[in-house]
Amino acid sequence: MIILKEKIKSLDKLYRTNFINSISGFKSANLVGTISKEGKTNLAIFSSVIHVGANPPLMGLLMRPVSVERHTYTNIKETNHFTINHINKEIFKQAHQTSARYDKDVSEFNSCGLMPEYSEIIKAPYVSESKIKIGLKYVEENEIKINGTIFIVGEIVELILQEEIISKDGYVDIEKAGTIAISSLDSYHETKRIARLSYAKPGVEPKEL
Amino acid sequence: MIILKEKIKSLDKLYRTNFINSISGFKSANLVGTISKEGKTNLAIFSSVIHVGANPPLMGLLMRPVSVERHTYTNIKETNHFTINHINKEIFKQAHQTSARYDKDVSEFNSCGLMPEYSEIIKAPYVSESKIKIGLKYVEENEIKINGTIFIVGEIVELILQEEIISKDGYVDIEKAGTIAISSLDSYHETKRIARLSYAKPGVEPKEL
Repeated sequence: MIILKEKIKSLDKLYRTNFINSISGFKSANLVGTISKEGKTNLAIFSSVIHVGANPPLMGLLMRPVSVERHTYTNIKETNHFTINHINKEIFKQAHQTSARYDKDVSEFNSCGLMPEYSEIIKAPYVSESKIKIGLKYVEENEIKINGTIFIVGEIVELILQEEIISKDGYVDIEKAGTIAISSLDSYHETKRIARLSYAKPGVEPKEL
Repeated sequence: MIILKEKIKSLDKLYRTNFINSISGFKSANLVGTISKEGKTNLAIFSSVIHVGANPPLMGLLMRPVSVERHTYTNIKETNHFTINHINKEIFKQAHQTSARYDKDVSEFNSCGLMPEYSEIIKAPYVSESKIKIGLKYVEENEIKINGTIFIVGEIVELILQEEIISKDGYVDIEKAGTIAISSLDSYHETKRIARLSYAKPGVEPKEL
Protein backbone atom coordinates (compact mmCIF):
# COMPACT_ATOMS: atom_id res chain seq x y z
CA MET A 1 0.00 0.00 0.00
CA ILE A 2 1.05 3.62 -0.52
CA ILE A 3 0.74 6.09 2.34
CA LEU A 4 1.20 9.79 1.64
CA LYS A 5 2.23 12.69 3.87
CA GLU A 6 -1.33 13.97 4.31
CA LYS A 7 -2.47 10.55 5.54
CA ILE A 8 0.43 10.39 8.02
CA LYS A 9 -0.50 13.82 9.39
CA SER A 10 -4.11 12.71 9.90
CA LEU A 11 -3.22 9.58 11.93
CA ASP A 12 -3.96 9.28 15.64
CA LYS A 13 -0.94 10.55 17.60
CA LEU A 14 0.03 7.28 19.32
CA TYR A 15 -0.52 5.27 16.12
CA ARG A 16 1.67 7.71 14.17
CA THR A 17 4.40 7.60 16.83
CA ASN A 18 4.56 3.79 16.71
CA PHE A 19 4.34 3.79 12.93
CA ILE A 20 7.00 6.38 12.07
CA ASN A 21 9.34 5.10 14.77
CA SER A 22 9.20 1.66 13.10
CA ILE A 23 10.29 2.52 9.63
CA SER A 24 13.87 3.71 10.08
CA GLY A 25 14.96 0.06 10.47
CA PHE A 26 16.62 -1.66 13.43
CA LYS A 27 18.10 0.60 16.07
CA SER A 28 20.99 0.33 18.49
CA ALA A 29 20.02 -0.46 22.09
CA ASN A 30 22.01 1.54 24.60
CA LEU A 31 21.77 2.96 28.10
CA VAL A 32 23.24 6.41 28.62
CA GLY A 33 24.62 7.05 32.10
CA THR A 34 25.20 10.50 33.53
CA ILE A 35 25.60 12.26 36.89
CA SER A 36 24.57 15.76 37.96
CA LYS A 37 26.99 18.19 39.59
CA GLU A 38 25.25 17.36 42.90
CA GLY A 39 26.12 13.69 42.39
CA LYS A 40 22.67 12.34 41.39
CA THR A 41 22.99 9.56 38.82
CA ASN A 42 20.72 9.20 35.80
CA LEU A 43 20.22 6.37 33.33
CA ALA A 44 18.17 6.53 30.12
CA ILE A 45 17.57 4.18 27.21
CA PHE A 46 18.47 5.54 23.75
CA SER A 47 17.84 3.93 20.38
CA SER A 48 19.45 6.73 18.39
CA VAL A 49 23.15 6.15 19.10
CA ILE A 50 25.21 6.05 15.89
CA HIS A 51 28.83 5.93 14.76
CA VAL A 52 30.16 9.37 13.79
CA GLY A 53 33.84 8.76 13.09
CA ALA A 54 36.77 6.47 13.86
CA ASN A 55 39.62 9.01 14.03
CA PRO A 56 39.03 10.78 16.31
CA PRO A 57 36.69 8.08 17.70
CA LEU A 58 33.23 9.70 17.86
CA MET A 59 29.68 8.64 18.62
CA GLY A 60 26.48 10.63 18.39
CA LEU A 61 22.93 10.44 19.67
CA LEU A 62 19.75 12.37 19.04
CA MET A 63 17.73 13.63 21.98
CA ARG A 64 14.58 15.59 22.71
CA PRO A 65 15.77 18.05 25.35
CA VAL A 66 12.30 18.82 26.68
CA SER A 67 11.34 15.31 27.68
CA VAL A 68 12.41 12.42 29.89
CA GLU A 69 15.83 12.70 28.31
CA ARG A 70 16.31 16.23 29.63
CA HIS A 71 18.07 14.97 32.78
CA THR A 72 20.63 13.29 30.55
CA TYR A 73 21.14 16.50 28.57
CA THR A 74 21.48 18.68 31.67
CA ASN A 75 23.96 16.29 33.27
CA ILE A 76 26.11 16.05 30.13
CA LYS A 77 26.27 19.85 29.99
CA GLU A 78 27.21 19.99 33.69
CA THR A 79 29.94 17.37 33.72
CA ASN A 80 30.99 17.07 30.06
CA HIS A 81 30.94 13.29 30.44
CA PHE A 82 28.53 10.45 29.66
CA THR A 83 28.63 6.69 29.21
CA ILE A 84 27.06 4.47 26.55
CA ASN A 85 26.34 0.89 27.64
CA HIS A 86 25.11 -1.88 25.33
CA ILE A 87 21.83 -3.50 26.32
CA ASN A 88 21.86 -7.31 26.35
CA LYS A 89 19.06 -9.85 26.67
CA GLU A 90 19.53 -10.19 30.45
CA ILE A 91 18.78 -6.52 31.16
CA PHE A 92 16.33 -5.44 28.45
CA LYS A 93 13.38 -5.13 30.84
CA GLN A 94 15.35 -3.01 33.29
CA ALA A 95 16.63 -0.95 30.35
CA HIS A 96 13.09 -0.38 29.05
CA GLN A 97 11.94 0.66 32.51
CA THR A 98 14.41 3.59 32.50
CA SER A 99 12.07 5.29 30.01
CA ALA A 100 9.44 5.83 32.74
CA ARG A 101 9.09 9.45 33.90
CA TYR A 102 11.08 9.39 37.12
CA ASP A 103 11.74 12.62 39.02
CA LYS A 104 15.21 14.13 38.73
CA ASP A 105 16.15 13.11 42.28
CA VAL A 106 15.25 9.46 41.65
CA SER A 107 18.07 7.38 40.18
CA GLU A 108 17.00 4.95 37.47
CA PHE A 109 19.82 2.66 38.64
CA ASN A 110 18.01 2.00 41.93
CA SER A 111 14.49 2.14 40.56
CA CYS A 112 15.15 -0.18 37.62
CA GLY A 113 17.55 -2.62 39.26
CA LEU A 114 20.83 -1.89 37.54
CA MET A 115 24.23 -1.41 39.15
CA PRO A 116 26.35 1.71 38.65
CA GLU A 117 30.08 1.18 38.13
CA TYR A 118 32.76 3.87 38.06
CA SER A 119 36.13 4.25 36.39
CA GLU A 120 38.97 6.58 37.30
CA ILE A 121 38.63 8.90 34.35
CA ILE A 122 34.94 9.22 33.46
CA LYS A 123 32.68 11.44 35.59
CA ALA A 124 29.59 9.36 34.81
CA PRO A 125 28.33 5.93 35.88
CA TYR A 126 28.65 2.85 33.70
CA VAL A 127 26.08 0.03 33.83
CA SER A 128 27.85 -2.86 35.50
CA GLU A 129 25.66 -5.51 33.81
CA SER A 130 26.50 -4.24 30.34
CA LYS A 131 29.23 -6.12 28.47
CA ILE A 132 30.34 -3.25 26.25
CA LYS A 133 30.81 0.06 28.08
CA ILE A 134 31.95 3.29 26.48
CA GLY A 135 33.05 6.45 28.30
CA LEU A 136 32.73 9.69 26.34
CA LYS A 137 33.58 13.36 26.60
CA TYR A 138 31.09 15.88 25.19
CA VAL A 139 32.36 17.47 21.96
CA GLU A 140 29.52 19.40 20.31
CA GLU A 141 25.80 19.58 19.72
CA ASN A 142 23.75 20.45 16.64
CA GLU A 143 20.13 21.48 16.85
CA ILE A 144 17.84 20.04 14.20
CA LYS A 145 15.92 23.23 13.46
CA ILE A 146 12.70 21.72 12.15
CA ASN A 147 11.79 19.96 15.42
CA GLY A 148 14.29 21.13 18.05
CA THR A 149 15.91 17.74 18.63
CA ILE A 150 19.61 17.86 19.43
CA PHE A 151 22.35 15.70 17.95
CA ILE A 152 25.03 15.32 20.62
CA VAL A 153 28.54 14.18 19.67
CA GLY A 154 31.02 12.69 22.13
CA GLU A 155 34.60 11.51 21.83
CA ILE A 156 35.42 8.04 23.11
CA VAL A 157 37.83 8.30 26.00
CA GLU A 158 37.56 4.81 27.47
CA LEU A 159 36.22 1.45 26.34
CA ILE A 160 35.51 -1.52 28.59
CA LEU A 161 34.85 -4.90 26.94
CA GLN A 162 35.99 -8.52 26.90
CA GLU A 163 39.10 -9.21 24.85
CA GLU A 164 37.59 -12.48 23.50
CA ILE A 165 34.97 -10.69 21.41
CA ILE A 166 37.53 -8.65 19.45
CA SER A 167 38.53 -10.26 16.14
CA LYS A 168 42.03 -10.07 14.65
CA ASP A 169 40.94 -7.32 12.25
CA GLY A 170 39.39 -5.15 14.98
CA TYR A 171 35.77 -6.24 14.39
CA VAL A 172 33.94 -6.59 17.71
CA ASP A 173 31.43 -9.44 17.84
CA ILE A 174 28.63 -7.58 19.58
CA GLU A 175 26.27 -10.50 18.87
CA LYS A 176 28.55 -12.73 20.97
CA ALA A 177 28.39 -10.10 23.71
CA GLY A 178 24.61 -10.52 23.72
CA THR A 179 23.90 -7.01 22.42
CA ILE A 180 20.33 -6.69 21.15
CA ALA A 181 18.53 -4.41 18.70
CA ILE A 182 15.36 -2.32 18.98
CA SER A 183 12.55 -1.70 16.54
CA SER A 184 10.07 1.11 16.97
CA LEU A 185 9.66 2.19 20.61
CA ASP A 186 9.19 -1.03 22.50
CA SER A 187 10.29 -4.12 20.55
CA TYR A 188 13.53 -5.92 21.45
CA HIS A 189 15.31 -8.34 19.13
CA GLU A 190 18.22 -10.74 19.38
CA THR A 191 20.29 -11.29 16.25
CA LYS A 192 21.82 -14.10 14.21
CA ARG A 193 24.68 -13.35 11.84
CA ILE A 194 23.99 -14.06 8.16
CA ALA A 195 27.54 -13.25 7.04
CA ARG A 196 30.41 -10.82 7.06
CA LEU A 197 31.25 -9.72 3.52
CA SER A 198 34.60 -8.75 1.98
CA TYR A 199 35.42 -5.12 1.11
CA ALA A 200 33.41 -4.23 -2.01
CA LYS A 201 35.23 -3.48 -5.28
CA PRO A 202 33.64 -2.67 -8.67
CA GLY A 203 33.16 -5.81 -10.76
CA VAL A 204 34.10 -8.23 -7.96
CA GLU A 205 31.38 -10.20 -6.20
CA PRO A 206 31.66 -9.87 -2.40
CA LYS A 207 32.82 -13.01 -0.59
CA GLU A 208 31.70 -14.24 2.82
CA LEU A 209 34.51 -13.77 5.35
CA MET B 1 39.87 -5.13 29.25
CA ILE B 2 40.10 -1.33 29.34
CA ILE B 3 41.16 0.56 26.22
CA LEU B 4 41.96 4.25 26.51
CA LYS B 5 41.89 7.07 23.95
CA GLU B 6 45.66 7.04 23.44
CA LYS B 7 45.59 3.32 22.61
CA ILE B 8 42.75 3.85 20.11
CA LYS B 9 44.75 6.60 18.38
CA SER B 10 47.77 4.32 18.08
CA LEU B 11 45.86 1.46 16.39
CA ASP B 12 46.40 0.50 12.76
CA LYS B 13 43.92 2.48 10.61
CA LEU B 14 41.90 -0.44 9.23
CA TYR B 15 41.81 -2.16 12.65
CA ARG B 16 40.60 1.06 14.28
CA THR B 17 37.92 1.57 11.60
CA ASN B 18 36.51 -1.93 12.13
CA PHE B 19 36.79 -1.58 15.89
CA ILE B 20 35.16 1.83 16.40
CA ASN B 21 32.47 1.09 13.81
CA SER B 22 31.50 -1.99 15.86
CA ILE B 23 30.83 -0.43 19.20
CA SER B 24 27.83 1.81 18.55
CA GLY B 25 25.59 -1.30 18.55
CA PHE B 26 23.39 -2.68 15.78
CA LYS B 27 22.69 -0.36 12.87
CA SER B 28 19.84 0.07 10.44
CA ALA B 29 20.42 -1.41 6.97
CA ASN B 30 19.15 0.85 4.21
CA LEU B 31 19.79 1.70 0.58
CA VAL B 32 19.52 5.38 -0.34
CA GLY B 33 18.35 6.03 -3.90
CA THR B 34 18.92 9.31 -5.73
CA ILE B 35 19.06 10.71 -9.26
CA SER B 36 21.17 13.54 -10.71
CA LYS B 37 19.65 16.43 -12.64
CA GLU B 38 20.96 14.72 -15.80
CA GLY B 39 18.94 11.62 -14.87
CA LYS B 40 21.75 9.31 -13.68
CA THR B 41 20.60 7.11 -10.83
CA ASN B 42 22.68 6.34 -7.75
CA LEU B 43 22.27 3.82 -4.97
CA ALA B 44 24.31 3.64 -1.76
CA ILE B 45 24.17 1.57 1.41
CA PHE B 46 23.83 3.52 4.67
CA SER B 47 23.96 2.19 8.22
CA SER B 48 23.41 5.57 9.86
CA VAL B 49 19.71 6.16 9.14
CA ILE B 50 17.80 7.12 12.31
CA HIS B 51 14.37 8.32 13.37
CA VAL B 52 14.27 12.09 13.93
CA GLY B 53 10.60 12.81 14.61
CA ALA B 54 7.06 11.54 14.06
CA ASN B 55 5.22 14.86 13.56
CA PRO B 56 6.30 16.05 11.10
CA PRO B 57 7.61 12.61 10.07
CA LEU B 58 11.40 12.95 9.80
CA MET B 59 14.38 10.72 9.21
CA GLY B 60 18.08 11.53 9.28
CA LEU B 61 21.33 10.03 8.09
CA LEU B 62 24.98 10.88 8.58
CA MET B 63 27.24 11.05 5.55
CA ARG B 64 30.82 11.78 4.66
CA PRO B 65 30.45 14.16 1.74
CA VAL B 66 33.95 13.62 0.40
CA SER B 67 33.69 9.88 -0.17
CA VAL B 68 31.72 7.28 -2.07
CA GLU B 69 28.60 8.84 -0.60
CA ARG B 70 29.28 12.18 -2.32
CA HIS B 71 27.14 11.22 -5.34
CA THR B 72 24.22 10.74 -2.99
CA TYR B 73 24.84 14.13 -1.39
CA THR B 74 25.17 15.95 -4.72
CA ASN B 75 22.01 14.35 -6.09
CA ILE B 76 19.97 15.19 -2.98
CA LYS B 77 21.07 18.83 -3.26
CA GLU B 78 20.16 18.86 -6.97
CA THR B 79 16.71 17.29 -6.78
CA ASN B 80 15.71 17.77 -3.11
CA HIS B 81 14.50 14.15 -3.06
CA PHE B 82 15.84 10.78 -1.94
CA THR B 83 14.51 7.35 -1.07
CA ILE B 84 15.32 5.05 1.86
CA ASN B 85 14.78 1.34 1.18
CA HIS B 86 15.07 -1.41 3.81
CA ILE B 87 17.62 -4.12 3.07
CA ASN B 88 16.33 -7.67 3.46
CA LYS B 89 18.13 -11.02 3.48
CA GLU B 90 17.50 -11.61 -0.24
CA ILE B 91 19.41 -8.51 -1.34
CA PHE B 92 22.13 -8.00 1.28
CA LYS B 93 24.98 -8.94 -1.08
CA GLN B 94 23.77 -6.57 -3.78
CA ALA B 95 23.29 -3.90 -1.12
CA HIS B 96 26.85 -4.39 0.19
CA GLN B 97 28.21 -4.17 -3.35
CA THR B 98 26.85 -0.61 -3.72
CA SER B 99 29.66 0.48 -1.36
CA ALA B 100 32.27 -0.19 -4.09
CA ARG B 101 33.78 2.96 -5.64
CA TYR B 102 31.83 3.20 -8.87
CA ASP B 103 32.21 6.24 -11.13
CA LYS B 104 29.44 8.83 -11.07
CA ASP B 105 28.16 7.80 -14.52
CA VAL B 106 27.83 4.15 -13.46
CA SER B 107 24.50 3.28 -11.84
CA GLU B 108 24.75 0.96 -8.86
CA PHE B 109 21.32 -0.39 -9.81
CA ASN B 110 22.73 -1.98 -12.98
CA SER B 111 26.14 -2.85 -11.56
CA CYS B 112 24.81 -4.47 -8.40
CA GLY B 113 21.70 -6.15 -9.80
CA LEU B 114 18.86 -4.20 -8.23
CA MET B 115 15.80 -2.81 -9.97
CA PRO B 116 14.84 0.89 -9.84
CA GLU B 117 11.17 1.67 -9.33
CA TYR B 118 9.52 5.09 -9.64
CA SER B 119 6.50 6.74 -8.08
CA GLU B 120 4.58 9.75 -9.30
CA ILE B 121 5.71 12.15 -6.61
CA ILE B 122 9.31 11.34 -5.69
CA LYS B 123 12.14 12.43 -8.00
CA ALA B 124 14.39 9.54 -6.95
CA PRO B 125 14.43 5.81 -7.61
CA TYR B 126 13.15 3.25 -5.10
CA VAL B 127 14.63 -0.25 -4.86
CA SER B 128 11.97 -2.55 -6.24
CA GLU B 129 13.19 -5.59 -4.23
CA SER B 130 12.89 -3.73 -0.93
CA LYS B 131 9.73 -4.38 1.08
CA ILE B 132 9.68 -1.07 2.94
CA LYS B 133 10.29 1.99 0.75
CA ILE B 134 10.31 5.58 1.96
CA GLY B 135 10.28 8.69 -0.22
CA LEU B 136 11.70 11.85 1.37
CA LYS B 137 12.11 15.53 0.68
CA TYR B 138 15.31 17.23 1.84
CA VAL B 139 14.71 19.49 4.86
CA GLU B 140 18.06 20.55 6.33
CA GLU B 141 21.64 19.57 6.98
CA ASN B 142 23.91 20.03 9.97
CA GLU B 143 27.67 19.79 9.72
CA ILE B 144 29.41 17.97 12.55
CA LYS B 145 32.28 20.41 12.97
CA ILE B 146 34.84 18.07 14.50
CA ASN B 147 35.06 15.77 11.46
CA GLY B 148 33.06 17.39 8.67
CA THR B 149 30.39 14.69 8.45
CA ILE B 150 26.92 15.93 7.57
CA PHE B 151 23.65 14.99 9.23
CA ILE B 152 20.93 15.22 6.56
CA VAL B 153 17.28 15.41 7.57
CA GLY B 154 14.39 14.57 5.24
CA GLU B 155 10.62 14.68 5.62
CA ILE B 156 8.68 11.54 4.72
CA VAL B 157 6.43 12.27 1.76
CA GLU B 158 5.50 8.74 0.70
CA LEU B 159 5.67 5.28 2.22
CA ILE B 160 5.31 2.01 0.32
CA LEU B 161 4.86 -1.19 2.35
CA GLN B 162 2.57 -4.21 2.77
CA GLU B 163 -0.54 -3.60 4.84
CA GLU B 164 -0.18 -7.01 6.57
CA ILE B 165 2.94 -5.96 8.51
CA ILE B 166 1.24 -2.98 10.17
CA SER B 167 -0.19 -3.78 13.63
CA LYS B 168 -3.38 -2.28 15.00
CA ASP B 169 -1.42 0.19 17.10
CA GLY B 170 0.73 1.40 14.19
CA TYR B 171 3.79 -0.75 14.97
CA VAL B 172 5.33 -2.04 11.74
CA ASP B 173 6.75 -5.58 11.97
CA ILE B 174 9.98 -4.95 10.08
CA GLU B 175 11.25 -8.38 11.16
CA LYS B 176 8.33 -9.96 9.28
CA ALA B 177 9.29 -7.84 6.26
CA GLY B 178 12.72 -9.48 6.38
CA THR B 179 14.57 -6.29 7.29
CA ILE B 180 18.07 -7.03 8.59
CA ALA B 181 20.57 -5.21 10.81
CA ILE B 182 24.26 -4.33 10.35
CA SER B 183 27.15 -4.43 12.77
CA SER B 184 30.42 -2.65 12.08
CA LEU B 185 31.08 -2.17 8.35
CA ASP B 186 30.45 -5.56 6.83
CA SER B 187 28.41 -7.86 9.10
CA TYR B 188 24.74 -8.58 8.34
CA HIS B 189 22.30 -10.01 10.88
CA GLU B 190 18.75 -11.33 10.83
CA THR B 191 16.69 -10.81 13.97
CA LYS B 192 14.36 -12.70 16.28
CA ARG B 193 11.96 -10.78 18.51
CA ILE B 194 12.42 -11.28 22.25
CA ALA B 195 9.38 -9.21 23.20
CA ARG B 196 7.46 -6.00 22.88
CA LEU B 197 7.09 -4.28 26.26
CA SER B 198 4.31 -2.10 27.60
CA TYR B 199 4.74 1.66 28.07
CA ALA B 200 7.00 2.19 31.09
CA LYS B 201 5.61 3.84 34.23
CA PRO B 202 7.43 4.46 37.54
CA GLY B 203 6.89 1.60 39.97
CA VAL B 204 5.14 -0.68 37.46
CA GLU B 205 7.01 -3.64 35.98
CA PRO B 206 6.80 -3.64 32.14
CA LYS B 207 4.61 -6.40 30.67
CA GLU B 208 5.20 -8.32 27.45
CA LEU B 209 2.65 -7.23 24.84
